[in-house]
Amino acid sequence: MTKGEMLYEGKAKRVFHTDNSDQYIVEYKDDATAFNGEKKGTISGKGQLNNAISTIFMEMLKEHNIPTHFISKLNANEQLVRKVEIVLLEVVVRNIAAGSLAKRLGMAEGTVLPKAVVEFYYKDDDLGDPLINDSHIDVLNLATPETVAKMAEYGRQINDILINYLKDRKVKLVDFKLEFGITPQGELILADEISPDTCRFWDADTNEKLDKDRFRRDMGNVEEAYQEMLRRLGGVEV
Amino acid sequence: MTKGEMLYEGKAKRVFHTDNSDQYIVEYKDDATAFNGEKKGTISGKGQLNNAISTIFMEMLKEHNIPTHFISKLNANEQLVRKVEIVLLEVVVRNIAAGSLAKRLGMAEGTVLPKAVVEFYYKDDDLGDPLINDSHIDVLNLATPETVAKMAEYGRQINDILINYLKDRKVKLVDFKLEFGITPQGELILADEISPDTCRFWDADTNEKLDKDRFRRDMGNVEEAYQEMLRRLGGVEV
Ligand SMILES: Nc1ncnc2c1ncn2[C@@H]1O[C@H](COP(=O)(O)OP(=O)(O)OP(=O)(O)O)[C@@H](O)[C@H]1O
Ligand SMILES: Nc1ncnc2c1ncn2[C@@H]1O[C@H](COP(=O)(O)OP(=O)(O)OP(=O)(O)O)[C@@H](O)[C@H]1O
Ligand SMILES: [Mg+2]
Ligand SMILES: [Mg+2]
Repeated sequence: MTKGEMLYEGKAKRVFHTDNSDQYIVEYKDDATAFNGEKKGTISGKGQLNNAISTIFMEMLKEHNIPTHFISKLNANEQLVRKVEIVLLEVVVRNIAAGSLAKRLGMAEGTVLPKAVVEFYYKDDDLGDPLINDSHIDVLNLATPETVAKMAEYGRQINDILINYLKDRKVKLVDFKLEFGITPQGELILADEISPDTCRFWDADTNEKLDKDRFRRDMGNVEEAYQEMLRRLGGVEV
Repeated sequence: MTKGEMLYEGKAKRVFHTDNSDQYIVEYKDDATAFNGEKKGTISGKGQLNNAISTIFMEMLKEHNIPTHFISKLNANEQLVRKVEIVLLEVVVRNIAAGSLAKRLGMAEGTVLPKAVVEFYYKDDDLGDPLINDSHIDVLNLATPETVAKMAEYGRQINDILINYLKDRKVKLVDFKLEFGITPQGELILADEISPDTCRFWDADTNEKLDKDRFRRDMGNVEEAYQEMLRRLGGVEV
């Protein structure tokens, strides 16, 4: 596997071409941003931690027959993935009110939702990733109604799998963000990452935050929280 | 018909009990507000104009078999309506990008949408009437999925009827807001009003605004615009 030219540098990862035209290498960085890039910083060790954590989640989801882009972990900061064209929608699934949902619906943070909420956000940094509905997705031509329904369905399935998996590890899954993509063969698969950058994880007993909210809200012990998550998932400490 | 106690005073109308427990009297005021009540003012004659305009639209929709709360116009400022329990959702239907849609999706105001967009907003002044999706409606228990689907369907039907009706009157229907309610007998019907307060109307040739945007944006000739709309609808000038 030869690492080729860089295709894209995002806020948390870099994507590289490889000598296989169907595969990319994703490199996880220590950079952290919040509030649509307004807040910037570094979480030392985050790249390695998220690479390890996302690997565990993706391999676990594969065992549950969720199609993902993940092929293999190459080294501390890199993984090999299937190349996709990313659908310009973020799928957010929520079990407990927090963040923008708490604000939008006027719910206290921590309110357990009677059932999981699924939201679609338009992946557009300039617009601040706004919440949109099926009708907006339709006129923006972001995905077919069938693809949208499939993404929502995968979102709910993945939620059930993750909740169950994390319960044994004394972690509450508050909410998380997924990205999907279409392979060159036309298959819709889960892409991007699943990590404390993209999920809210709370300790099952104390509700202690074990995710990027520690960075967003200047709570300290950010790296330690990511490390604790990796430890609970049974990963080797990095 | 005896006017009883006032039940509710809103920003633009007052609602009164009557001696018929299934009916209310709605009184249209000259008061105008915008930006969730931040901007306040008066548009002289607005109450009478909107009462007349909404009467024309509601009677026309009735002829097209849309069930509405409208019973009869009582006098210049009042109409008799069927009492409903208002569903706490505003249904917005859009044909041309303007206002919050233009902002949310990064479209230039005036962009013709490839198909009508239907949106649901949570009727909650304290939260600023946020955009919500089916999943939010579900956890907030605002309406059953069947009621939501019916409201969207009525919204699209009413849009088609209004577009057609207004075309002959040289008016473009940019967007509009509907409220629905449930009668004591359990029927879902159109309620509230259809007027320049709740629609964006543009002159078909010049795109001149004939609606509340003239008030929102301090464009002047607000009363004249409402009068012009009534004139085009064939109503008697008030
Ligand atoms: N399998 C894949 N194939 C192609 N692109 C991918 C794949 N998985 C993830 N990506 C994309 O690679 C980029 C990862 O970088 P990063 O997460 O740092 O981006 P970001 O800063 O979140 O910005 P944005 O997601 O808005 O582009 C994202 O654009 C993501 O959508
Ligand atoms: N047939 C009806 N039966 C009962 N209530 C109605 C009916 N039609 C309209 N309403 C309600 O009467 C009120 C009309 O007042 P107005 O339009 O001034 O309210 P508003 O200031 O827009 O405030 P809000 O709609 O947020 O209560 C609204 O609350 C509306 O939902
Ligand atoms: Mg990202
Ligand atoms: Mg109103």
